[in-house]
Amino acid sequence: MNVSIVTIGDEILIGQIVDTNSAWMAQQLNKAGAKVVKIITTSDGHSDIIEAIQQAQDVADVVLITGGLGPTKDDITKKAIADHLGVGMEFSQTTFDHISGLLTKWGIKITEGHKIQSRMPANAVLLPNKMGTAPGMWFDLPDKVIVSMPGVPYEMQYLMANEVIPKLVKRFQVYPIIHRTILTAGIGESVLADKISHIEEQLPDYVKLAFLPGKAMVRVRLSARAENGEDVEKVVEEEAQKITDELAGFVFGFEKETLPEVVLKRCGERNLTLSTAESCTGGFVSHLITTIPGSSTVFKGGVVSYSNELKMNLLGVPKLTLEQHGAVSEETVIAMAKGALKTMNTDIAVSISGIAGPDGGTPEKPVGTVWICVCNEKEVFTRKLELSKDRVKNIEYSANIALTALWRFVMKQY
Amino acid sequence: MNVSIVTIGDEILIGQIVDTNSAWMAQQLNKAGAKVVKIITTSDGHSDIIEAIQQAQDVADVVLITGGLGPTKDDITKKAIADHLGVGMEFSQTTFDHISGLLTKWGIKITEGHKIQSRMPANAVLLPNKMGTAPGMWFDLPDKVIVSMPGVPYEMQYLMANEVIPKLVKRFQVYPIIHRTILTAGIGESVLADKISHIEEQLPDYVKLAFLPGKAMVRVRLSARAENGEDVEKVVEEEAQKITDELAGFVFGFEKETLPEVVLKRCGERNLTLSTAESCTGGFVSHLITTIPGSSTVFKGGVVSYSNELKMNLLGVPKLTLEQHGAVSEETVIAMAKGALKTMNTDIAVSISGIAGPDGGTPEKPVGTVWICVCNEKEVFTRKLELSKDRVKNIEYSANIALTALWRFVMKQY
Repeated sequence: MNVSIVTIGDEILIGQIVDTNSAWMAQQLNKAGAKVVKIITTSDGHSDIIEAIQQAQDVADVVLITGGLGPTKDDITKKAIADHLGVGMEFSQTTFDHISGLLTKWGIKITEGHKIQSRMPANAVLLPNKMGTAPGMWFDLPDKVIVSMPGVPYEMQYLMANEVIPKLVKRFQVYPIIHRTILTAGIGESVLADKISHIEEQLPDYVKLAFLPGKAMVRVRLSARAENGEDVEKVVEEEAQKITDELAGFVFGFEKETLPEVVLKRCGERNLTLSTAESCTGGFVSHLITTIPGSSTVFKGGVVSYSNELKMNLLGVPKLTLEQHGAVSEETVIAMAKGALKTMNTDIAVSISGIAGPDGGTPEKPVGTVWICVCNEKEVFTRKLELSKDRVKNIEYSANIALTALWRFVMKQY
Repeated sequence: MNVSIVTIGDEILIGQIVDTNSAWMAQQLNKAGAKVVKIITTSDGHSDIIEAIQQAQDVADVVLITGGLGPTKDDITKKAIADHLGVGMEFSQTTFDHISGLLTKWGIKITEGHKIQSRMPANAVLLPNKMGTAPGMWFDLPDKVIVSMPGVPYEMQYLMANEVIPKLVKRFQVYPIIHRTILTAGIGESVLADKISHIEEQLPDYVKLAFLPGKAMVRVRLSARAENGEDVEKVVEEEAQKITDELAGFVFGFEKETLPEVVLKRCGERNLTLSTAESCTGGFVSHLITTIPGSSTVFKGGVVSYSNELKMNLLGVPKLTLEQHGAVSEETVIAMAKGALKTMNTDIAVSISGIAGPDGGTPEKPVGTVWICVCNEKEVFTRKLELSKDRVKNIEYSANIALTALWRFVMKQY
């Protein structure tokens, strides 16, 4: 099944918004077993729209149109589609009732304009849109399908997921793609690839493996589409299990989980409390943690000790340690984490001190030198990082590596 | 000058990457006085490329092609363009020398493939690309211009800024658009619009005013393009001055400045030091501050007192205050800020306590209730916010409003 996408809207042509709809649609269509062959962005002029639809359908079985359906633009797009298909416009009572219902709920007066908005090309099969006033429109031609949807992302996404893709899969009888994503941290991409190369080599032809590196993590994605009715779901699940077993100790989650989420979950299950002592990350670790709803049951708080004075006064780092080893040293991060444990009275503490840059480096400790520490009453783990010259990147990587160390510490010690 | 953009590349058609190039190009073209009328994304097949270029040039004076110029794809796109224009391919010594020079520098061996990569359509005017191996290609037709560029964003951006736009402006004699952006905080969009409506009404026809709301801030943008050789730069500057004067006290910066940057600059100029005491924002304020290079000269540190225990132990908030008024109250944020001032020994402190959600609200203090405080030794400023039910939004808005309060406090008190 080949698909073309037509995006109607001046906002994209003037560069005011980036066309993220097309990428989202392409991803979903790919998963459903369809292939996008062309994307056309056009203005909302009557003849421009017709030309774009024609060029789109010349090369595809399916044309998906988004945008051009707002209350003010409404008529142009629908009229253009009707003219393109050679049909008239008809009043749709269902659509009018739907619009009236929503407007009454919102306390908005129904006007003559809403009656006009309820006129649809005569051969349109209407797709109910629970997210807004404009329904999707499905046109079933002898060998093609044309679909028109609003351009508002969540309305389009609702219609694609609940109406368009299920109907297309049925109409063109395609097999969907099955995905399974394994989330790893604490292991580099090449080492990871080596470790599972023997599994990769034995994968059936129709199962693809991809490594998707993120910030201090690597996602391993298996995808497969049945070609001859194979039970791909079972096969992918089995292969994912093999990979997970091989990577034991590095797999922190699956699919859309995040590292802070997993850290909080693992601590919560063990009734552990947590505190942070941050220098160069400036509160980014505690921000990542507290973005998760319910984090307050585990996370008691943190200190951002940006100055040496606060490292001493709030965390009890000895003056001598700072003088002898400097703020960016193993001795200091240990003292920071130990101090956090005590001052904030938690089971575990994580600390970070480094030179985020762009300035402040020395030949001995260049920009990107970062020490992290995780500890509890009994055990201390430390690690030295040598990162880049980019301040924001250094902050993000340090924070994610600290969270990884924290997760591994919890899994090992408790 | 009407422009069509043709984007060549399967990565966009499978939704792996979002086409941000087109939006960037459209913005730059708009500023230069050109109008984008169509964007086509196509695969890198020979006939698909020719079809897309033809459809693009049917509706525009200029066709800008990006992508399809990588070392492996190289030949298809160039051959398609040559065939479309009915010319042959020729070896370009200049290009070969350029590629050889770069490869030698990178320590890569020159192969036969690089000779092939140096073959260009015969009528191409080559645009030197300092950012990569593939030059841009400019084709001057009797009434149209076709340009081909690599798809790598920084290579395309380099060629657009240094070669393509200057040449197009000259060839089609268009006037550029002048922009001036005024950054405001602490005032809502509608009040702001009212305040400057008398200026807006008197703007010359060719000067446009736009309100661009962000997170707890509004950008006011003036844009103008000369139609008959007017000195628009001067006019826009004058109108921007009027607006800035009218909005005195709410304008924190211009163009691409950010609020944390401005806060640090204003504190730095006055030799002021700063600390934070955060509850519901969980370290996001200190993160925003410490993302700015050099922030350590002003920012000494912060406490993320997520639990009541830490509000008492680290910031000295009296137990009685918490018991009588709760953690989310004016009394508590004042005690937090005063405590931060003392514990961290800074000139100014900012504190935030609230219910970020999605749970934890009560009828009296629903989710989204947030108190902020800014203080120094003498003065205390507080404000209560009533935000949304969305945790991440609440954190972002609270942090930005706290920074706004901090900025206004500094401007007023020092």
